[in-house]
Amino acid sequence: MPDTRVLFFDVFGTLLDWRGSLLDEAADVGSRMGVSADWAAVVDDWRRAYQPALDTVRGGPTWLDLDAVQRDTLAQVLHHHRVALPAEGRETLVRAWRRLRPWPDTRTGLDRLRARFRTATLSNGHIALLVDLFRFADLRVDAVLSAQLAGSYKPEPRVYLRCAELLECDPREAAMVAAHGDDLVAAARVGLRPIFVRRPEEWGPGGGGDPPTGLPGLVVADGLEKLADRLCD
Amino acid sequence: MPDTRVLFFDVFGTLLDWRGSLLDEAADVGSRMGVSADWAAVVDDWRRAYQPALDTVRGGPTWLDLDAVQRDTLAQVLHHHRVALPAEGRETLVRAWRRLRPWPDTRTGLDRLRARFRTATLSNGHIALLVDLFRFADLRVDAVLSAQLAGSYKPEPRVYLRCAELLECDPREAAMVAAHGDDLVAAARVGLRPIFVRRPEEWGPGGGGDPPTGLPGLVVADGLEKLADRLCD
Repeated sequence: MPDTRVLFFDVFGTLLDWRGSLLDEAADVGSRMGVSADWAAVVDDWRRAYQPALDTVRGGPTWLDLDAVQRDTLAQVLHHHRVALPAEGRETLVRAWRRLRPWPDTRTGLDRLRARFRTATLSNGHIALLVDLFRFADLRVDAVLSAQLAGSYKPEPRVYLRCAELLECDPREAAMVAAHGDDLVAAARVGLRPIFVRRPEEWGPGGGGDPPTGLPGLVVADGLEKLADRLCD
Repeated sequence: MPDTRVLFFDVFGTLLDWRGSLLDEAADVGSRMGVSADWAAVVDDWRRAYQPALDTVRGGPTWLDLDAVQRDTLAQVLHHHRVALPAEGRETLVRAWRRLRPWPDTRTGLDRLRARFRTATLSNGHIALLVDLFRFADLRVDAVLSAQLAGSYKPEPRVYLRCAELLECDPREAAMVAAHGDDLVAAARVGLRPIFVRRPEEWGPGGGGDPPTGLPGLVVADGLEKLADRLCD
């Protein structure tokens, strides 16, 4: 087996606390616009609508970026919850995906891992969104890569293969780092090494995903600093 | 006119001293392999062969990355100069494009400009090469973008337009920063603001290009620190 040269990082949930950040933004927008709602339920349903909506884009004739997808799903979720948030407020929440806070160990962990490996995002967020997000969170990788560059979305195999190709990297020389089993299963299927990072607060206290089962060579780490302890020292 | 939000940077010559770096590498390879040559003539001819070779790729059916292009042109130039450098030495020189030194003001200038603008490369180098180069030179931009993402080479218009699109940027909200007039003329033709950075040593002492004439709104700066003085304060 070749050595690992490249680490690809999932972004939402793995590097950034989308839920805590969006809850703050939603509470703020609601209070500013005089709209009350169970924002936690709205935000969680919005996030649950994400993957099915991307499946639709993947199967459809026209690629849409994440802003367009999330604008649609947010309108549906708000309608379902009977929350009449004006368009300006909805747009604030769509743009809030560019103002997500990193987990406490993300910046230092990424920097330590970057000293040893080439690092890149491999996210369903499009490049412009990721650029804004990484500026906001002051995070650094060697390359901001996105499913956009394959004109598709994870977990489609060619998304992982396109990003590996752009870094001149045999898939077996790369690892996928994510807090989500489905991402790792798909990455491993095309040859990337799976690294599961536990994010026990992703869906609120105690609401983190579990590592996938039956993945050969799976590495499991409690955050990026722990991963750096393991891979860099 | 909209405000400038994004700065795109040419890389070879504008941010990095390709000539000085390659001369050192060539002298080193030559001495190690016992091959003597007028390395300055070889390196300069190699660089002169660059744009015509890219023109051929642009007009051809298959896109080739810069390593492939430079491997061919180097073999031709060495043959022309009757220099028998073994394949291993030629490959060292092709890879030397990933070990170019930045100009003294590049790192600090880029950092100051990044504090005020979104920054990205817009280079004919492919992404994997640029990632290696920016790691080597310890340079930071928000996004490493390349003509590769348009499947073409500068100065083709769609290269500039594709990079602007990836940053969700109207071309009139972006500026192209380069030490080469032809790059700026092409960028300005599709709406980007032209910024000429003088690099008087690019082709050796006194061997820098002149700003293009007749470009409306052209900004001329003596390096990136001076440009930051002008745009950031």
